This record gives sequence, structure tokens and C-alpha cells, in this order.
Amino acid sequence: MITVFTDSSPNGFKVTIALEELGLPYTLEQINLHAGEQRQSSFLAINPHGRIPVLRDEQTGVTLFESSAILLYLAEKTGRLLPEALTARWEAIKWLQFHSASMGPILGQRVHFELFAPTRLREAIDRYRSLSEEAFATLDRHLSSRVFLAGDSYSIADIATFGWTHIAVICGFGFEHHRHLTRWHDAVARRPAVGRGVMLPAPATGP
Amino acid sequence: MITVFTDSSPNGFKVTIALEELGLPYTLEQINLHAGEQRQSSFLAINPHGRIPVLRDEQTGVTLFESSAILLYLAEKTGRLLPEALTARWEAIKWLQFHSASMGPILGQRVHFELFAPTRLREAIDRYRSLSEEAFATLDRHLSSRVFLAGDSYSIADIATFGWTHIAVICGFGFEHHRHLTRWHDAVARRPAVGRGVMLPAPATGP
Ligand SMILES: N[C@@H](CCC(=O)N[C@@H](CS)C(=O)NCC(=O)O)C(=O)O
Ligand SMILES: N[C@@H](CCC(=O)N[C@@H](CS)C(=O)NCC(=O)O)C(=O)O
Repeated sequence: MITVFTDSSPNGFKVTIALEELGLPYTLEQINLHAGEQRQSSFLAINPHGRIPVLRDEQTGVTLFESSAILLYLAEKTGRLLPEALTARWEAIKWLQFHSASMGPILGQRVHFELFAPTRLREAIDRYRSLSEEAFATLDRHLSSRVFLAGDSYSIADIATFGWTHIAVICGFGFEHHRHLTRWHDAVARRPAVGRGVMLPAPATGP
Repeated sequence: MITVFTDSSPNGFKVTIALEELGLPYTLEQINLHAGEQRQSSFLAINPHGRIPVLRDEQTGVTLFESSAILLYLAEKTGRLLPEALTARWEAIKWLQFHSASMGPILGQRVHFELFAPTRLREAIDRYRSLSEEAFATLDRHLSSRVFLAGDSYSIADIATFGWTHIAVICGFGFEHHRHLTRWHDAVARRPAVGRGVMLPAPATGP
């Protein structure tokens, strides 16, 4: 049995979307980030860095943190969501890594400085706007001649990237001027597994 | 034949170190970042994001950017630098991803705000000092009971992480208060392939 420790957040959605897409049975353990549960010692025992998502696979004894490691693991375990042909497979891994190292962290910093930082630091806000725009433009150019990031088939690269474009839309970090990226985002958003994955666990509401 | 497009920089070193360690023949093409060669159209054709390193393998037709994708590719191509046993293999991939998504980007932002930004933004500097200290502490705790990041054997996780601890030392971002991380760093630094990798291409000197 697979257990996922997560909360309603971009890096968490990548894992719930993938599990829903694969139809694998799993148990969801909500870690309430707002309440600081990621810093409790029971959680630090499975991720010493104190971040969600974490996946534990009792069948193999593997416990993983880092959303991209989890996506690679699920693809390898099932033989799905990663093309088999050599070139397409490495296209998928390349764009997965582009997302996790060059795009996700930049959008994360933009969220901090634009929405949460106590002081509005103009230079920091401008820096992350311009770097995230550069990442959006890179994806848009790439998607101008492809259906999905790795070519014809939907892969873990699309799932990872959508985890953050979904949050970008919610945060008002628009990319509608990039029409290929927008077309891709809308097509991914319409997948039933994506619709379910982004509601797991249910987002917090109210005060 | 393998060609690496790189410059003297942390993400580039990961690839030159790995190639030196594996003893694979390769050609090095220097992309002068200082001169802006990463934004020339011939380079953007191989990495539309305009960053080094890029690796091209003529034997398979695979061209990759993103240092972690390149490290995974070299490990898969050679069957080396990634443990075979399931649990150790995923440990290596987990710490590789920890480095590329949670540590490298944070140190990159710290370099910017602490050393290059035209204005000293106290809050941004403090933010990245504290986040990089958290990453160092996470590695230190993990290395308190292991020789290398994935356990007993040296892997691409160590190579990726060293790419940035090497630069942290050069930039004065000390971590000597973390004795396990320091012991690990010193041991990796002593490997002959590491000594060669961090000098490729030769660092720019003088004005
Ligand atoms: N690179 C990591 C990032 C994980 C991460 O930053 N998770 C956030 C939620 S999206 C978190 O747990 N934040 C809690 C905190 O920083 O205390 C991944 O892809 O899994
Ligand atoms: N996540 C990427 C980062 C690549 C990156 O930022 N490379 C830097 C050098 S270490 C670069 O090319 N900078 C040039 C620029 O930003 O114009 C990787 O791991 O390869």
C-alpha cells in the first residue's frame, strides 16, 4: 500500500494527480502546513527537511520526499507516464527537471515576495516576475510545436509543470499572453485525474 | 562522442566531474557566460532557456539541458554512479532532487542577493541565509550516519551537491559548524576526478 503525506499545495498536487492518473490505491495523510505539522518530529523522521509531499510504498520499503523523485518512482513502478523510446524518455526527464529546478523554485520565490513578505521589496518582486516570465516563455516556445512537453504523450513532466501553472493562475501570475502554454494548460486542466488531484486534500477555506 | 557546453560554474562542474569520474571521452565547448554567449541563437537552439550545462550524445541523438537530467542520463548510460539495489537507488535519486530543487536554487538566490544585487536588501539576504542554513543542516543530519548521501557508495547525488558546496566555500557561505557535512565535503574534494572537474573549463582570472 502507498501512503502520501501532503497538503493542498503545488508540490503536493503533482503526486495526487499522478496517483489519480495511474489509478493506484493509496492512503492520504494530511499534514497541516498552516498548523506547522511539517515540523513535528514524527514528520521530520520521514523528511528531515520538513516539506511535503512524502510518499511511502510499503510494498518496496521505499520512502521518498521531493516531488520529482516521487514522480520518477511512480513512473518506474508502473511503466507509465514516461515514454519508452529513448529520445522521448529523456525529453520528459529534461522538462521534469526544468520544472523542478528552474521553474518551481522561481515561482515559489515570487509567491513569497509578491504575496507574503511583510515588506514589498520592489527589486525582489521584479526579479521573480522577470525570471518566471522567462520560464513561461521557454515553455511556450517549446509547446508551439508539441502537444505535450515530451511530444505526443502525456508524462510526469506535464504533471509537474501543471502543479505550478495551476497555482500561478490562482495567484494571478498570468501567462495568457503565451498562447501555446495556455492551450496546453487548459488541456491538462480538463483531464479528470487532474481535476481530482488538485482537490486532494480539500483546500482550506474560511478564516 | 559526447559534447558538453559549459562554463566555469556550479551547475557545469556537476557534469565535468561526472564525466571525469566515469572516464568517458568528451569534447568541451566553452560557452562564455560573461560575454553572454548563452543568449546567442545557436546556443538557444540547444537550450531555449539559455543556461549551461548542455550535453549532446551523438551516439544516441540525445541532447539534454538541466544538470540533474544530464547526471541521471550518464548514470543510466554507464550503469555507474547510481546504486543498483532499489532502496539505495531511490535514496540517491531523492538526494539528487533535494539538491537540484531545494538547495541549488536557494544558494543561487543567495549568491545574487549577497554578492551581486546592486542594492543590499537585508530581508532578502536574511531569507536566503536562513534557507541555505536549513539545507546545510538537513544534509549534515543525514550525513551523520552515512559515508555518502545514498549510503556506502559515491553517487550522482554527491556530485550534484558538491557542485554547490564547492561554490559555497568560494563565496564564503560557511558550513564548517556542520561537521558531518564538512567531513563529507572534504572527502569528495579529495577525489582526483573532482579536482579535475572543477577546473574545466579553467576559471576566468583577472579583469
Ligand atoms: N522541492 C520540493 C519542495 C517541497 C516544498 O517546498 N513543499 C512546500 C509545500 S508546496 C512545503 O512543504 N512547505 C512547508 C514549509 O516550508 O514549511 C518538492 O518538489 O517536493
Ligand atoms: N537548473 C539548471 C540551472 C542552470 C543554470 O542556472 N546555469 C547557470 C550557470 S551555473 C547559467 O547558465 N547562467 C547564465 C544565465 O543565467 O544567463 C541546471 O541545474 O542545469
